[in-house]
Order: sequence, then structure tokens, then C-alpha cells
Amino acid sequence: MEQYFHWIDLLGIAVFAISGTLAAWRNQMDGFGVIVLASVTAIGGGTLRDLILDAPVIWINNNSYFYAIFIAAIGTILAVRNRLTIPHNTLQLFDALGLAFFVIMGTQKALDNGTSAMVAIMLGTMSGVCGGMIRDVLCREVPMVFRGELYAVTCIFGGVVYTVLISVGVNTAVAMTVGMLALLLLRLAAMKWQITIPVFAKHHAELNEP
Amino acid sequence: MEQYFHWIDLLGIAVFAISGTLAAWRNQMDGFGVIVLASVTAIGGGTLRDLILDAPVIWINNNSYFYAIFIAAIGTILAVRNRLTIPHNTLQLFDALGLAFFVIMGTQKALDNGTSAMVAIMLGTMSGVCGGMIRDVLCREVPMVFRGELYAVTCIFGGVVYTVLISVGVNTAVAMTVGMLALLLLRLAAMKWQITIPVFAKHHAELNEP
Amino acid sequence: MEQYFHWIDLLGIAVFAISGTLAAWRNQMDGFGVIVLASVTAIGGGTLRDLILDAPVIWINNNSYFYAIFIAAIGTILAVRNRLTIPHNTLQLFDALGLAFFVIMGTQKALDNGTSAMVAIMLGTMSGVCGGMIRDVLCREVPMVFRGELYAVTCIFGGVVYTVLISVGVNTAVAMTVGMLALLLLRLAAMKWQITIPVFAKHHAELNEP
Repeated sequence: MEQYFHWIDLLGIAVFAISGTLAAWRNQMDGFGVIVLASVTAIGGGTLRDLILDAPVIWINNNSYFYAIFIAAIGTILAVRNRLTIPHNTLQLFDALGLAFFVIMGTQKALDNGTSAMVAIMLGTMSGVCGGMIRDVLCREVPMVFRGELYAVTCIFGGVVYTVLISVGVNTAVAMTVGMLALLLLRLAAMKWQITIPVFAKHHAELNEP
Repeated sequence: MEQYFHWIDLLGIAVFAISGTLAAWRNQMDGFGVIVLASVTAIGGGTLRDLILDAPVIWINNNSYFYAIFIAAIGTILAVRNRLTIPHNTLQLFDALGLAFFVIMGTQKALDNGTSAMVAIMLGTMSGVCGGMIRDVLCREVPMVFRGELYAVTCIFGGVVYTVLISVGVNTAVAMTVGMLALLLLRLAAMKWQITIPVFAKHHAELNEP
Repeated sequence: MEQYFHWIDLLGIAVFAISGTLAAWRNQMDGFGVIVLASVTAIGGGTLRDLILDAPVIWINNNSYFYAIFIAAIGTILAVRNRLTIPHNTLQLFDALGLAFFVIMGTQKALDNGTSAMVAIMLGTMSGVCGGMIRDVLCREVPMVFRGELYAVTCIFGGVVYTVLISVGVNTAVAMTVGMLALLLLRLAAMKWQITIPVFAKHHAELNEP
């Protein structure tokens, strides 16, 4: 089981490292800004989760996370160098994959540490969203989480699916797999059909600027 | 007493959640970017404070903080939908209220954890300022803390008032109430009369850009 | 030895506080945004390092760090007021100095806490880079770490030099001094001759925007 968690964690890390490297490439960053962006995207969310849970930070006693980042980053660089046309939504696809892994892993780890289901879902969402948020802030882009298309909602949805399955006694590995798939499918559907939930009615410049 | 602290904390959370929701609205964010912005503004500063104090993060064992955020966010959305013209400084007013609650609560909690008065004031200021700072960075606005009008100074002032009152033996609840009022009044006065402290003499482009 | 570490830490703090104050000045921030920017630059990286190591945050039981920040910030303000033309790369020079102190101190502290050499170098780099990263994000500038010129690479290089010296049995104080000098010289050389490592081949707008 531990082993299974570790692999999911590594996969999430690698996938977010790819998304960070692609963001570096899109922003024409040369030099090893790539390393920084890949690492920050990959370990930002999980680090925050562990700090808040007061658990040892995942990568502090384990070099494998860094190998995952390096391999993912170098692989991405080679891929980009050899075939310069990369469809715009490749970045979004890898971001969605990383999201699925991290949200469910985060929810699971929080439950394991004894939090309520609600806090676990919040913490799972946070670990999925924050790495990408830091990536986007550093690239000075509008964080993907704000660009509509159910970004935060899919995370909460995945977390709810997982916690409900756990609470009715489903095996952890099965619940994780189903939760990840549910999250991923909703996210991809939202991206494909551009599903949004308008919270505020349309408004223009009704704001009284001073 | 514990009860009193809890309510002050909840009030600060709710008020910052309102300010986060208003910021989301001002930036025309649709979808549940609102949830993210409300949560980040509301729990950002307190979470950082607790991490640094190595105390359990306030919301980790307590769902009530999330209820406060949800109620505040939904209430704000309804208010905004029904009456589309909101004066610009409503955001600033709620920000000032949250500031007063968080700075004094943060200072109190730090003292409780045995820090020196100076570190406590710094930590109080940090817990008051950081949630809004993350909010502004995510919205890609110049952080309010830099827009002059004694922002950081009012926090330090409130913290000093509180720690002085405590050190002369005043009752905690009284000291907190007085500290919050002092902070709030100075902040409102600074906003109303646009009081600023020019640190650097006026300068134009004397900087030798390369 | 402890004493030696403390002084290096204080020096790094002071130097980063200067760089934060200069950034505030460049961005024409009046009011005490200076305090915020100086503090954030100075203690951001070290705070993150200590949180991740689950060690007590350096400044939590020690007022001297704040005195260092205040003295550095006030000294810088006075210097700027008296002589308005400051060469552009003064900021970069102080940033490089702070980098050298923090990266090596961070690597040392991580090794002391029992991490592997690789994690120690990563953590050292993080403590050197993150304060400045937050500074640049708050100033809404492209983080210096992305502006090429081997920024991240020099940190890793310095960390490698230090850990190699330690592993072959060199005295800690000597290894630290050599590591810092190595890092500083490489950084200054990279700045002077604008050395960069192009990771991606030149590309224009081959990206298929939607």
C-alpha cells in the first residue's frame, strides 16, 4: 500500500514537473529557470500540505522525488527541442493529470492524519492547486485556477468522491483510482466543452472607482 | 476566554473572506475562483502564523472556519448580485476590519507561545498582512500593503498598543478590544485623510538602467 | 562555531534587507512598504528552510535578526537619500552576497539536520532564492532567478562545493567560506560576462495558441 502511494506521489511530481518545464518554455525562459519552475510546480503543493499537517515533508528523506523532477524536466526539454510545435493544451493536460494525483493523495494523507473529511478535501485541493498557482504567479500569468472551467470545483468533486467511497468502506487503492479518474474526467470535460459556473451576474464598470 | 478568542478568529476569517470575494468580483472572476480567493485571503495569514509558531494550524481540527468562509462568500455573492454598485472602498473597509482582528489575535497567540514582544508584533503584523498580500498577488494587483496610507505602520501600532497594555497588567480581553479599536481607527483615519509617510525623497529616473 | 553561524546568518539577513529596501526604492514605494519588502526578502528564504526542516524558525527566539533588518533598511534609506544616483547593479550585487551567505548556511543547516547531500543542496538553494523570489513577485517584476545568468546554477554549484569539501573532511568554517566565495565569484562572473545556458533552442511563436 505504502508502495502504491509512493508511486502515485512520484507520478504526480513528474507530471507537474513536466507542466512546469512547459511553462518555462512557453515563457521563453532560458538558463536553469526551468529547474526552478519545474521543482516549484512539482513540490509546492505537497510541501504545503505536509507543513500544514505537521508531517515530515515528503521529499526531505527521499531523493527519488528529485530524480523524478530531473528526468521529467530533461525529457520534456529533449521532446521540445526535437519537435518544436507543441499544442497549447498539452500544458493543461499535464496540469490536469498532476491535479488528479495530488488532490486524491492529499485528501488521503490528510484523512490518515486524522482530519475531518471536509478539512481533508480542502487540504487535498490545496495540495493539487498550490504548485500550479505558484508556477503561474512566477510566470506572471493569471493563475489557471481562476481561468474558469471548473478548476477548483473538479478538485472538490474528486475529493468528495474519494471520501464518500472511503466512508462506505471501499478499499483505499480502489477509492483512490476511482477518485482520480472522476476528477480527471470532469476536468477534461470542463476543458473540452468550456463548462463554467458563472457566480456573478455579468457586470461592467459599475464599480465606483475613486 | 478561549471562546472569546475563537469568535474573534472566526470574525477575522469571515471578514477577510468577504474581502477576498469582493476582490474576485472586481477582477471579473467567474467560476469558483471565488472560493479560492476567499479561502486564501481568509486563512493565509493565520496559517503562516501557526506554521511559524509550530502550533497546530487553526483550521486543521475545526470545520467552523470553513463554514465561516462559505457563509461569508455566499452572503457577499448574493449581496453583490442584488445591488451591483458597490463603493470602491468597501473592500478596503473589510480589509481593515480583518486586519484589526488578525493582527491582535496573532500578537496574542505569539505571546502565548512565549515569544518576545517584538517578535509577537512582527508575527501579528505578518498574520494580518499576508492573507491580503497573497490575494493581491493572485489578482495581479499592487499589494494593498504597498499602496501607502500607513498600512504596515497601523499593524505595528496596534501590536504595540496591545503588548504595552498586557505588560502593564490589563485584562487580555480588554487589551485585545482596545488594541483592535486603536488599529482600526488609525487605519480608517489614514485611509480617509490619505496619511502617508514619505520615506524616500521624490525621485524620478535617476536610476542608471543598464 | 555556533557564533560563526549566527554572524553569517545575520550578515545574510542584513544584505537581503538592503536588497529589499533598494527594490522598494526602485519601485517608488513610499510609506513603510519598505519595512515589509526588506523583511520579506531577508527572512523569507530562511523561514521556509526552517519550516521544511521542522526546526524552530531562526528569528522566533532572537530579536537580533530584526535589529539587523532595521539597521540595514534605515542605513540604506539614508544612503539613498543622500546620494540619489545608485547604479542599477548595486541591487544585484547585494542580492549575490545574500545568496552566497544563505545558500551555504542553508545547506549546512540541512546537513546538520541529517538530510542527504542532494536534499541539502536543494534546500540551500531554496533558502537563498525564495526571499528574493517573493520580493520580485511583490514588486511585480520577473523574478531575478529567471533572468538567466546562471542564477540557480550558481546556487547549486556553491552547494556542491560545500558538500564535497565537508565529505572529504574539511573543517566546517573553512568549507563554508570557500563555498561562499566560489558561489559569489561564479555569480559575479556570470553577471559581468552575461553567461547563460540556453536550454531551449530559439523559438518564436510556434506554439499553437487556441
